[in-house]
Amino acid sequence: MAGVLRGVVLAGLWLAAGAAAAAEERVDLDMVAKIRQEAFARSQVAANLKELTETVGPRLTASPAYVRSTAWARGKLQGYGLANVREEVFDPAFGRGWEYRSSRVEMLAPREMPIHAAPKAWTPGTRGAVEGEVVKVALKTSEDLGKHKGTLRGKIVLLDDARAYKPADRPDFRRHTGESLGELQTFPVPAEAGDDAQEKRLAEYRKRQAFSRELNTFLQEEGALAALSISSWDNGILRVTGAASRKAGEPTGVTELVLAAEHYNQLVRAVERKQDVRLRLDVDAGFTSEEDLPAANVFADLPGAGKADEVVIIGAHLDSWHTGTGASDNGAGVVVMMEAMRILKAIGAKPRRTIRLALWGGEEQGLHGSSNYVARYLADWPEPTDPEQKALPRAFQRGTGPLQRQRGYERFSTYFNFDNGTGRIRGIYAQENHAAVPVFKAWLEPFHDLGAEIVSTRNTGSTDHIAFDRVGLPGFQFVQDPADYMSRVHHTHLDTYDHVVPEDLKQAAAIIASFAWHAANREQRFPRKPFRDRDE
Amino acid sequence: MAGVLRGVVLAGLWLAAGAAAAAEERVDLDMVAKIRQEAFARSQVAANLKELTETVGPRLTASPAYVRSTAWARGKLQGYGLANVREEVFDPAFGRGWEYRSSRVEMLAPREMPIHAAPKAWTPGTRGAVEGEVVKVALKTSEDLGKHKGTLRGKIVLLDDARAYKPADRPDFRRHTGESLGELQTFPVPAEAGDDAQEKRLAEYRKRQAFSRELNTFLQEEGALAALSISSWDNGILRVTGAASRKAGEPTGVTELVLAAEHYNQLVRAVERKQDVRLRLDVDAGFTSEEDLPAANVFADLPGAGKADEVVIIGAHLDSWHTGTGASDNGAGVVVMMEAMRILKAIGAKPRRTIRLALWGGEEQGLHGSSNYVARYLADWPEPTDPEQKALPRAFQRGTGPLQRQRGYERFSTYFNFDNGTGRIRGIYAQENHAAVPVFKAWLEPFHDLGAEIVSTRNTGSTDHIAFDRVGLPGFQFVQDPADYMSRVHHTHLDTYDHVVPEDLKQAAAIIASFAWHAANREQRFPRKPFRDRDE
Repeated sequence: MAGVLRGVVLAGLWLAAGAAAAAEERVDLDMVAKIRQEAFARSQVAANLKELTETVGPRLTASPAYVRSTAWARGKLQGYGLANVREEVFDPAFGRGWEYRSSRVEMLAPREMPIHAAPKAWTPGTRGAVEGEVVKVALKTSEDLGKHKGTLRGKIVLLDDARAYKPADRPDFRRHTGESLGELQTFPVPAEAGDDAQEKRLAEYRKRQAFSRELNTFLQEEGALAALSISSWDNGILRVTGAASRKAGEPTGVTELVLAAEHYNQLVRAVERKQDVRLRLDVDAGFTSEEDLPAANVFADLPGAGKADEVVIIGAHLDSWHTGTGASDNGAGVVVMMEAMRILKAIGAKPRRTIRLALWGGEEQGLHGSSNYVARYLADWPEPTDPEQKALPRAFQRGTGPLQRQRGYERFSTYFNFDNGTGRIRGIYAQENHAAVPVFKAWLEPFHDLGAEIVSTRNTGSTDHIAFDRVGLPGFQFVQDPADYMSRVHHTHLDTYDHVVPEDLKQAAAIIASFAWHAANREQRFPRKPFRDRDE
Repeated sequence: MAGVLRGVVLAGLWLAAGAAAAAEERVDLDMVAKIRQEAFARSQVAANLKELTETVGPRLTASPAYVRSTAWARGKLQGYGLANVREEVFDPAFGRGWEYRSSRVEMLAPREMPIHAAPKAWTPGTRGAVEGEVVKVALKTSEDLGKHKGTLRGKIVLLDDARAYKPADRPDFRRHTGESLGELQTFPVPAEAGDDAQEKRLAEYRKRQAFSRELNTFLQEEGALAALSISSWDNGILRVTGAASRKAGEPTGVTELVLAAEHYNQLVRAVERKQDVRLRLDVDAGFTSEEDLPAANVFADLPGAGKADEVVIIGAHLDSWHTGTGASDNGAGVVVMMEAMRILKAIGAKPRRTIRLALWGGEEQGLHGSSNYVARYLADWPEPTDPEQKALPRAFQRGTGPLQRQRGYERFSTYFNFDNGTGRIRGIYAQENHAAVPVFKAWLEPFHDLGAEIVSTRNTGSTDHIAFDRVGLPGFQFVQDPADYMSRVHHTHLDTYDHVVPEDLKQAAAIIASFAWHAANREQRFPRKPFRDRDE
């Protein structure tokens, strides 16, 4: 992008950048060269991603495979010679273990046809093959439940309407263009949202959660065989997350399956033309524990010298959903962040601040691993007393008083996250931290030749940097090429190794190693944006 | 497209078009208006396509569902009041019946994982669940078979290498643009191909067929459990046709499955990293007859008055592959052609020539239904005596003497085919029949407002009009929007009703009804292109 870097001054091997108002930002080009060489010539990203996704497999938090994945990560990190490699439980009772092994769904009538389907996480399997009649009933409200009470024993319930096929109007895999990167460098002035927009959203969320539990109980008491939903994407893609039955003691509901849209629609049409529709289900999936299990984050340090108690964190979530192998979401982030640490260690980097790797759990269920870490070590609001509030993931809770800062709050430098699939880094979102803009511009300069150029002042959300950002600490995600993240792989059975581009991950690892190094060795603490507490 | 129609002369309700050299081509705009009204206001295409694809199901030639489909079509056509509704066997021993009911493929080791797969047609099922070790061996030549003899008992064999993911660089669903239609209006001068290019292709084909039989025998004698291939398209799409075991007496080989690329690649990588890879297979599919069964085309007539023994044929193939429901390939063509007949009958059309509907079988295995019809009623070369030649589908055979013309040859008018999925008609391929160009231009003129505008002088192939074209008779396919035919649905498990756009089929039915009408009522016989016999 033209015009991204104005006022760059070359000074020997050091490079200074920034607008007139910003202090000179020093960039260590010797270190950049070492990092790039290690990242490109001796990369471990592809080998690690294959191991993580195909030997360990998909990693639903608190599942047996998740436990295997934390051990796998510790082993690798210890092998790299990093310090303080450790697991730390972020929730002693995250939820019950659950596992998906296989499933078979067959239409028996009006004709025989195999159906592509996968179970929602934390729903029970069928314990062998079961058969039942398919019915379609609207179960959207408590009144709906009352209306159909006593009618669903042994039935397989279609929860959704048929949905018309919506062909994609863009290629399924995309790189950013000059135009789309230009667009990201504009800041959309926030529209009027109303003071209670956030409250309304949370109320919606609570209502959905509550009804989901009510529906689970209802279907279970009815003795329905299973509940079927349509995948949210077309083209046979199974896009599957979980159901509201993670915690011991909650109603588990019945077997819940997400069907390929092309198959689901056929069932709806057959029912609507009053045909007798029967399915056979054999879902080998289910809980692996009666009780709630603990879930842990994994950490490893490259200890600082000089400012060792100040910390730069780089992280990604280790957990995944269960139908693919969690390659783009977020095996990619995991191996990139592990690789950034490996690179720094391998080239003998001695940072002033401590550089910490964090591999988070429970991200997919609401940033649990990262926000519990932030609450414990950096800052949090007093725990809510309202049971409705307590039931929310911590990242959504509204505290009962002003933010309580821990000792680590002032010593914290910055957090970098990677969680948008395979796409190459094209820049970074500054999250409205304007003092960070010239810093990032300077740090990106030696990576322009790799396509990483822009600093967007925009906010981006939906992953673990938000756990930091919400308490006023610098936490960032990168601008990545869209690739096929939101067209093919996000939470789908296609989220597998083949959809990842190893070269992109090598680029990301180099950039993040360099960002971590520069944050750790910066003279000043990383700049913060103004923070206004929610109750101020 | 600008410039498509030059020299149009409006003459009352009649419209004449064509370049100076062409005779005036009369277009009956009254009839066009009636046809369009019937096609748009009382369309049966969507209802018929749903019935055909979802009540009858996919229609592998000679399968029980294919037999149901011919009965279904006859019932509908009789209901429309058409004459001479009949089935006619085009091959008394087409092949064994075969049916696909369901399948389950599970990876058991190195970890449990469900695998998306579907069997190739005419391969045996597993008769219950079987388990075996996965091995990867190159079986490309007779020497390969010798090398691995005695090593494959109870094994599941990976036949293909892993394949890198190839992201699409275009949207999965496309309409033609001015540019792409312009391109189709240029004629690429044929490149030098060498005199024996066709001979070489056929030799390749025969070699492949022969090796396929040899491989089947080998795997069967070895006692291998199954042979697995990678789907030819990515994104979880199962693209599946048949294996070379259709005929009674031929070796059936072993269970053959096509796997989603994302799953197949995982197996290859696991084997290559020397992990113990085990699968459980349970494929409920297989032969429904021991002996070869007959297969039939379906016909219905709108009898002509005046030139009743001259005939215009419109057709599409009724058969399909088995993993989807055969909606785009070629349920779409079937219901469009049935609808064109229904429209003409419903508006009381009294053509001079007979308009005949043909629904062909065996298209997917080599244009069997159409080329056998052409051979019987129109023209053919003397049957070859060379057994290698005899083994080829008729459309590929090289006759032993000059073309033998039947009585019907001279009385034949023209054939229109529809077999490129849901895509709207944008024009027609003239197959180098330059005398047909002004005729088509005139006939298309009242459909410009529906996007049908161009006449391409190019040839297009791969479907039933070739059965006519190859004996020197006019046979045509339309230029259609690409839609998602070659990106999602062609021979795949996604070839289902939802991927069809009913509005496109209504447009096609109107245009084809009008083309059939104008061909039937034309003063002169439809123009033919110069025909040079293969042995002349």
